[in-house]
Amino acid sequence: MKIYDRPGFPNPSRIRIVLSEKGFDDKVEFISVDLIGAEHKQAPFLAINPSGKIPVLELDDGTLISESTAITEYLDHLDGHPVLTGKTPREKALIHMMQNRAEAELMGAIDGYFHYATPGLGPAMQPYVAPEWAGRKEWGERQRAKAIRGMTYFDGVLKSQPFVAGDAFSMADITVFASLNFAEAAGILIPGECKSLITWREKISNLPSVKNRTGQDFLQEDLKRFGL
Amino acid sequence: MKIYDRPGFPNPSRIRIVLSEKGFDDKVEFISVDLIGAEHKQAPFLAINPSGKIPVLELDDGTLISESTAITEYLDHLDGHPVLTGKTPREKALIHMMQNRAEAELMGAIDGYFHYATPGLGPAMQPYVAPEWAGRKEWGERQRAKAIRGMTYFDGVLKSQPFVAGDAFSMADITVFASLNFAEAAGILIPGECKSLITWREKISNLPSVKNRTGQDFLQEDLKRFGL
Repeated sequence: MKIYDRPGFPNPSRIRIVLSEKGFDDKVEFISVDLIGAEHKQAPFLAINPSGKIPVLELDDGTLISESTAITEYLDHLDGHPVLTGKTPREKALIHMMQNRAEAELMGAIDGYFHYATPGLGPAMQPYVAPEWAGRKEWGERQRAKAIRGMTYFDGVLKSQPFVAGDAFSMADITVFASLNFAEAAGILIPGECKSLITWREKISNLPSVKNRTGQDFLQEDLKRFGL
Repeated sequence: MKIYDRPGFPNPSRIRIVLSEKGFDDKVEFISVDLIGAEHKQAPFLAINPSGKIPVLELDDGTLISESTAITEYLDHLDGHPVLTGKTPREKALIHMMQNRAEAELMGAIDGYFHYATPGLGPAMQPYVAPEWAGRKEWGERQRAKAIRGMTYFDGVLKSQPFVAGDAFSMADITVFASLNFAEAAGILIPGECKSLITWREKISNLPSVKNRTGQDFLQEDLKRFGL
């Protein structure tokens, strides 16, 4: 299998944690995509994923799978022993519910702030993600406020249960964790009163599948390339 | 089981099709939520779903499941014979990939146009979904353009395969179908050149689980209540 991605970026880091959690690190070849140069918005990459996003998983038969939730479903079921997406109908439902909330209330909101209210990924990417218009900056700031509300929501969830979707680590934890790393890189800090979320984040960062795998250093290098 | 929803609205119609496809129509009690009156944005409903959205499935043990994809995962696996969310890892992945694309490129974009560039659900709802600001209308129009691009994308997909995620009807077809009904109600018509999408829509509308179940009449009544 091949994975088109870029270390340190939010959704790629989700799949790298999944691979490690499943013990599949050696089963994939990584192909690096130049996000700062907007490589993923050009025709050759759009033939791989028409949505122009990474990561993309390419199976040995050529099947192309994009969207991190879909890639996680594939990898988690590949060995017949799902550990991240639930086994019972109730587990599957609660994990997908929290996964969707994490994408809507955190990942998507942080992404909106990053691209609309900050220089984002720089001049090559800007026309594709956040063209100039009157309400641009205000839209971005609204997304920042939404992300903070999302953090407060997940803090509340983690007051009464050890993981985002209940008693076990799941795909939903990975998405919240990757979102918080992205938020930090974009300059949105977790409010100090969100103690349960902060404690949970520390716990997740020390899991064997997570430790040293988020590639924040690589991200910082990418961002330095254009002076961020 | 109970379902909090409102007939005719996009995401509720997804779950009503799922229930019919699974033969579960008689297993649920429906509780109607007054969307026009913003009932889903008030404290009693926010205790059921903090995201303030319908539909929500309540299990007999009191477990609350929101997010239509999560509800679909639950219902599809309840009898041990999933028919809408895939059986093999590859099927699951392709269905979730197309499901996510349908939400991002169609449902979400149409929703953005409806709430930002039109009177949406009227004055009670407006402060919650689209507060007044300078870039509001332009943002909505951008979402309309995105929805049209989404239609063209799915038209291309359906040129080479009978259903959205491949050879079989799935959750992804239901989401695209519900999105197109929403688009029509919001005044976004499918471009005439999208012949494959138009033919597919006609085919889906005649499936036994879909026919007479979209509740467009109910939606029209709701919209008339405040003069839309």
